[in-house]
Amino acid sequence: MIRLTSEPILLDDLVRAAGDPASGALVLFVGTTRDHNQGRQVERLEYEAYPGMAEREMEKIGEEARRRWPLQKVAIVHRTGVVPVGEASVAIAVSSAHRADAFEAARFAIDRLKEVVPIWKKEFFEGGEVWIGDQCCGVGAWSDAAHAHGANHEHAERVSASGGSAAGRDGAGDAHPGAGQGARVAGGGVGPPSAIAPGPAKRD
Amino acid sequence: MIRLTSEPILLDDLVRAAGDPASGALVLFVGTTRDHNQGRQVERLEYEAYPGMAEREMEKIGEEARRRWPLQKVAIVHRTGVVPVGEASVAIAVSSAHRADAFEAARFAIDRLKEVVPIWKKEFFEGGEVWIGDQCCGVGAWSDAAHAHGANHEHAERVSASGGSAAGRDGAGDAHPGAGQGARVAGGGVGPPSAIAPGPAKRD
Repeated sequence: MIRLTSEPILLDDLVRAAGDPASGALVLFVGTTRDHNQGRQVERLEYEAYPGMAEREMEKIGEEARRRWPLQKVAIVHRTGVVPVGEASVAIAVSSAHRADAFEAARFAIDRLKEVVPIWKKEFFEGGEVWIGDQCCGVGAWSDAAHAHGANHEHAERVSASGGSAAGRDGAGDAHPGAGQGARVAGGGVGPPSAIAPGPAKRD
Repeated sequence: MIRLTSEPILLDDLVRAAGDPASGALVLFVGTTRDHNQGRQVERLEYEAYPGMAEREMEKIGEEARRRWPLQKVAIVHRTGVVPVGEASVAIAVSSAHRADAFEAARFAIDRLKEVVPIWKKEFFEGGEVWIGDQCCGVGAWSDAAHAHGANHEHAERVSASGGSAAGRDGAGDAHPGAGQGARVAGGGVGPPSAIAPGPAKRD
């Protein structure tokens, strides 16, 4: 089971999909909307995916995980649209005979997904909103892809807010702040996206 | 939520117990009964715990995890009694703001649980049965504890079977075979448990 959904993610479905009588371990990772980020009170997140391509990349992650670890099953579901605080935006379930493999493969899958799958996140917080792109650096190919499907957002972080505060790159369930800074604050109104080095070239 | 249960583990309950609006990541580990082990066709597992002490040790693991990582919540449930193939014997859910912490703490918790919590596993396979003790080495204190509550089984592996094959230490969801061998085969009938160096002293 590897797919996008605009509905709430049913964790039971993932666990069932990844379950296997030959496995002794199952690791489920769930990324949820956190109520705070960089000192901002987060109200909700909104995810936009490049459909088709996003699912293909997720499939590739599942295949790579199965090549690298002796796994039984891999299930990956990513939600699109609005995800309220506390709800799941992404869930990955991996089963294996032995637990070390399931842990490592699940960690690999979510790290890789955040790096390469063309899904963008908009954070709505008290007083503004900001696009957060985990794929900002090194996956410039998605620049054209996003443009082609009509999205008008940036692969790095951009704050559009009255009184928007300084913002770093740090989304729900992300690695620790400082692990990969690529943010830029554009306070005082909504302007066109601006590219951040070393991200993709500027678009408008 | 940290407890033993003789009922099937409801993963939803664990996820709900570990959920927190301040968390962006939740990692759920589930240890399930695997249909094979050491070349044997496993029919079911049966767990026996030293009650009270098992829960106290599980509580201590939760506390230690919270000291070592910035976590929101930790939930640990271990099932006792018969656990059929494919069903969960243990589940651990950990939530944190950032995913690295949840992964590391969940891994720590299951590794530690297998090491120190006085819960013993009996494997029923085609043609026999065997006690498997993950706490076999270095936790000799449980020797007396098990004795006190009337259990008559060993902390290392012991096969009682007609035609029981050679067996190593390797339970459902355990580390890879060879990570900690401490098994001994006592084929040809049910005898008293025999201690395995460097495990606890012989009991009878």
